[in-house]
Amino acid sequence: MASSQRLQGIFTPNMVPLDNRGNINEEELRKYTDWLIERGVHGLYPNGSTGEFLRFTPEERRRIIEIMVDQTRGRVPVLAGAAEANTRETIKACEYYHGLGARAVAIVAPFYYKLSPASVYAYFKEIGDNTPIDVTLYNIPLFASPIDVPTVQRLAEECPKVVAIKDSSGDIPHMIRMIKAVRPNRPEFSFLTGWDAALMPLLLIGCDGGTNATSGVVPEVTRKLYDLTIAGKLDEALKVQYDLVTLFDTMIYSAEFPEGFRAAAEIRGFRMGTGRQPLSEGQQRDLSALRNTLQCLLAEHGFASEPLGGCPVKGDEKFDSKEVSAIVQNVLAELKRRGLGN
Amino acid sequence: MASSQRLQGIFTPNMVPLDNRGNINEEELRKYTDWLIERGVHGLYPNGSTGEFLRFTPEERRRIIEIMVDQTRGRVPVLAGAAEANTRETIKACEYYHGLGARAVAIVAPFYYKLSPASVYAYFKEIGDNTPIDVTLYNIPLFASPIDVPTVQRLAEECPKVVAIKDSSGDIPHMIRMIKAVRPNRPEFSFLTGWDAALMPLLLIGCDGGTNATSGVVPEVTRKLYDLTIAGKLDEALKVQYDLVTLFDTMIYSAEFPEGFRAAAEIRGFRMGTGRQPLSEGQQRDLSALRNTLQCLLAEHGFASEPLGGCPVKGDEKFDSKEVSAIVQNVLAELKRRGLGN
Amino acid sequence: MASSQRLQGIFTPNMVPLDNRGNINEEELRKYTDWLIERGVHGLYPNGSTGEFLRFTPEERRRIIEIMVDQTRGRVPVLAGAAEANTRETIKACEYYHGLGARAVAIVAPFYYKLSPASVYAYFKEIGDNTPIDVTLYNIPLFASPIDVPTVQRLAEECPKVVAIKDSSGDIPHMIRMIKAVRPNRPEFSFLTGWDAALMPLLLIGCDGGTNATSGVVPEVTRKLYDLTIAGKLDEALKVQYDLVTLFDTMIYSAEFPEGFRAAAEIRGFRMGTGRQPLSEGQQRDLSALRNTLQCLLAEHGFASEPLGGCPVKGDEKFDSKEVSAIVQNVLAELKRRGLGN
Amino acid sequence: MASSQRLQGIFTPNMVPLDNRGNINEEELRKYTDWLIERGVHGLYPNGSTGEFLRFTPEERRRIIEIMVDQTRGRVPVLAGAAEANTRETIKACEYYHGLGARAVAIVAPFYYKLSPASVYAYFKEIGDNTPIDVTLYNIPLFASPIDVPTVQRLAEECPKVVAIKDSSGDIPHMIRMIKAVRPNRPEFSFLTGWDAALMPLLLIGCDGGTNATSGVVPEVTRKLYDLTIAGKLDEALKVQYDLVTLFDTMIYSAEFPEGFRAAAEIRGFRMGTGRQPLSEGQQRDLSALRNTLQCLLAEHGFASEPLGGCPVKGDEKFDSKEVSAIVQNVLAELKRRGLGN
Repeated sequence: MASSQRLQGIFTPNMVPLDNRGNINEEELRKYTDWLIERGVHGLYPNGSTGEFLRFTPEERRRIIEIMVDQTRGRVPVLAGAAEANTRETIKACEYYHGLGARAVAIVAPFYYKLSPASVYAYFKEIGDNTPIDVTLYNIPLFASPIDVPTVQRLAEECPKVVAIKDSSGDIPHMIRMIKAVRPNRPEFSFLTGWDAALMPLLLIGCDGGTNATSGVVPEVTRKLYDLTIAGKLDEALKVQYDLVTLFDTMIYSAEFPEGFRAAAEIRGFRMGTGRQPLSEGQQRDLSALRNTLQCLLAEHGFASEPLGGCPVKGDEKFDSKEVSAIVQNVLAELKRRGLGN
Repeated sequence: MASSQRLQGIFTPNMVPLDNRGNINEEELRKYTDWLIERGVHGLYPNGSTGEFLRFTPEERRRIIEIMVDQTRGRVPVLAGAAEANTRETIKACEYYHGLGARAVAIVAPFYYKLSPASVYAYFKEIGDNTPIDVTLYNIPLFASPIDVPTVQRLAEECPKVVAIKDSSGDIPHMIRMIKAVRPNRPEFSFLTGWDAALMPLLLIGCDGGTNATSGVVPEVTRKLYDLTIAGKLDEALKVQYDLVTLFDTMIYSAEFPEGFRAAAEIRGFRMGTGRQPLSEGQQRDLSALRNTLQCLLAEHGFASEPLGGCPVKGDEKFDSKEVSAIVQNVLAELKRRGLGN
Repeated sequence: MASSQRLQGIFTPNMVPLDNRGNINEEELRKYTDWLIERGVHGLYPNGSTGEFLRFTPEERRRIIEIMVDQTRGRVPVLAGAAEANTRETIKACEYYHGLGARAVAIVAPFYYKLSPASVYAYFKEIGDNTPIDVTLYNIPLFASPIDVPTVQRLAEECPKVVAIKDSSGDIPHMIRMIKAVRPNRPEFSFLTGWDAALMPLLLIGCDGGTNATSGVVPEVTRKLYDLTIAGKLDEALKVQYDLVTLFDTMIYSAEFPEGFRAAAEIRGFRMGTGRQPLSEGQQRDLSALRNTLQCLLAEHGFASEPLGGCPVKGDEKFDSKEVSAIVQNVLAELKRRGLGN
Repeated sequence: MASSQRLQGIFTPNMVPLDNRGNINEEELRKYTDWLIERGVHGLYPNGSTGEFLRFTPEERRRIIEIMVDQTRGRVPVLAGAAEANTRETIKACEYYHGLGARAVAIVAPFYYKLSPASVYAYFKEIGDNTPIDVTLYNIPLFASPIDVPTVQRLAEECPKVVAIKDSSGDIPHMIRMIKAVRPNRPEFSFLTGWDAALMPLLLIGCDGGTNATSGVVPEVTRKLYDLTIAGKLDEALKVQYDLVTLFDTMIYSAEFPEGFRAAAEIRGFRMGTGRQPLSEGQQRDLSALRNTLQCLLAEHGFASEPLGGCPVKGDEKFDSKEVSAIVQNVLAELKRRGLGN
């Protein structure tokens, strides 16, 4: 894949199926990779936040990329999450993924320690100057040190290998400010959003695409939203965007991230295994209930059969949506409590 | 104006000119009112945050509405900010503004004390059940207790007099969730955004209009952005939206709110007087510099002549925009520091 | 009372009893004032946050001070909350309370708008230069713009009339930094804490006293904690501090502030009336349950008889304390959600 | 060291010296270990936040513990930071450190993803049920998911191997609530604070000791503060606490954490090498200036000679302390901006 081609479209931040001993389930991961490509996603993005990169060892992270690049066989570009313990280890990972044939890497800003813009700049500058492979900056202020607009602008100007930013803040004026600051000097720089709930409006104000967790569950829908928006069919797009918000909210706010997405992928037919973050008994019960809700949501769009007990008829829906609303608000409160929230 | 007509379009949250003793400058306020209407805003919204309602006495707040309703003479609807010390006083203000002929009132959620959703509900419920005039809920989580989606939905269902919400969070998925929750049962309920930097995308996902501070400075531009977006001329609209972000950011982040807007209104020809919040010497110097920047920005679009010393030529612009970027980031940091930021 | 005397000891931020029409209950307020003085508080602090200053009209705020200064008859100093709509109105209130014979005023930093340190400085500087009465700065970052250490230091150095700060952040290193910055040049400047849950350690690191809401409910206990700590009887003091945390947490986190304190004052024998912030039905039920819990807590210390249904025996206590813990955590989360928390 | 002995006193969260290729400098680490023990710290705590555990590979983390346990030779207990990618890896690390002879491990709550109390409980429960070595919970809400009071209480009751909590929030009422909730059933459970700026008051309200970064730089001072406080010599202790705040603030707020501590350790005579997080040119200049300030601070107490250019005389000090105040406020703002702050 030519390095000069701009990153565009929907990249799936894919999850990793585990076997019953908790190890990477290679067979299922290959099957899942094929399934995503066949359903039309423009690219794959392993070792992202949805992919729980942090819960794998450095060796496992490499193995995930090996499997997926091999299985993809160049059909779509692979954007490999490459953040490791420090810049030296991260640059080594960049070299390794370059050798494997990944299209680019994505590197999240430093986390745990909350770094100043100067440190975030110095971190990416050292990587950008020493990487053999194109780099996508990954801004997710919910989880990591924020990458602010002047830092993005400066890195774009100084590092030709920095070719894109994935921004998961969902903040539209922030995206406008970044595009205004970067595009005049780097017209081929790519802007991707990680916030599914605002995908359509973000595409309309200038984004090139998204790395959207919903595309790991309903690739058909995320792709359709992208296509309708790009084609200017805004009425149809808006309807899909509204539906996607319901699904996204249900998956992201009804369980510890990314358990809701893992549960939905199970419903789509993949054996995801038990996640690496232990769940309390209460959480396991909640997850069971969520599976039912998700199956009904997916059944409504023909992506699954109804669960055995059936689904609420449309008239009951209002209650459900109120419940989801309440959950969303509570979880937003929880996120804020932990010093977060966009 | 028939109470049944949906609130729609651009409502200006207008500032209040002061005379040299710090009192309301009635003559200038009347002139400003005419000017706004003549430049095409769809309605007026006195006693909002931009109008510094909190820095006036209860008697002054009433006087402001009297002057503006009188001067408007029904040409456009007036949305009167009506929050007072408690529900009894607020309901009295509702009655008074109803008597004057205001189209509706806007009531900000309780502030200072940070109230739970149950309390926010109880507050608006008591007002909604006792007001003779239509009520617009005003959600500005930056400054006041947030009004969450289930609360909006419940108030919309229980209180026919609650006819709209003005939301200044700028959070697009939040707006989508509100519209989804309320519109099925209250199709005539109106959704207005107070966040100019995302006006176009918010209109595209279903908002009915905005109460936008920029329209108090460049009503021609805010109106044009509204018209282009509604007409589906998205390429042109996007260009205007990008320009509006620059102007908005400069006014909102370069000085203590709303001093930047007051400075810009001066440049448009109004004697705004000295604001009621004292400024340090450093702040006064900064405001002088800001006036120059604003005059150049406005001159670029033909809304003002260049300042005496001239403006930077286009080639220098990059530097300026970097500076604005840095200011924006710093101020966002400041807002967060004070426990804020959306 | 000589203006040169340092503010010291426990000042009660008293609540205001209302009658059944929602007006100030003067008779009960006079009775409550006497009761507090007789139980040993060192001073009174009407029109604070606990006193819900914001929910009264400017006229009512003046009336509250009139009644209390009159009733106090110089037995203890009165610190009058004096924040009004702007500096002009606030200075007028300072003059009025000076005329009445208040010992000093307390002025909260500007709220709603979240101001920068420069603006907070300019605000207090204008007041400090024009007030006839001593001023206590009031820092409550939970509700208002924060007053940072350099601002306190500068105001202390430039304004002789600024004689104290009340800090409700509960942040001990912050208090140490303020004392270090101010005391060398203003040895008579007074530092009061508004955070009951850390009163003992704050006194031990150098505070002069507190304005503590618990002293409006159990003045005997707050006073005793102060006396034991000052006397160096730390083992006994610590036991009282631990008990006070339980009571404080129960009152502050089990209901919308300050309803828990109002409920407890009822149990101590005062007719507080219905608060001015409406409550939902659910909140009213919760408040009933809280009244029972509070009566038991107070009965344990001999400040009330047990409620009709009796109280849980000590063995059951663990459950209750767990419940309080959970409530505390939830409410801290709620506070953070609304952009708060120290 | 008998597992039954309660963790008590000052544990140093030590830094790791690096050589000029950026690798662990074993010789210097051994020298540093001896130096700390000889200066009286009660224990060592490698692989903490100050030790930048996250910037080392899993192999390096093991090597650090091997070196330090070996060099310590049982003179003081070693508390080994043991958090790895997931519970399986973390339990393996527990087993390994147990085999080496560490006294206990410390495990930070899950970070990056911000987990709910239920998940934090499930995480520690799985570890607590499967570890052969005593576990200290590590609560640092600034960087990781918070461990709330009910979770600490439940883990203390269900897991005998969970024997302590290190809390770096610096929040005194929170510490009181934890002690109240846990001590009745687990009297030997240990409470350690990681917030040096409140060490004295936290010891006075019931803490057993601290894991304090200042003890890696001035072990003599931190130890003295502990001894004076325990001995009830509060006037002397308070003076030391005030001095420690100045030093702590300077190190923590004048550079990206933990660079200020690394710089100070250099002044005490250790070759710390270049940190693993790259610094911008501006940051490197700032760090040079900070070194000078720190050398003067340490010289004042006889821990270093004055730098070549000399130090400001005492009269100038006020200026410096104002500057430090301003820096502290700015950095607190920065922390809040990144969604943090205690």
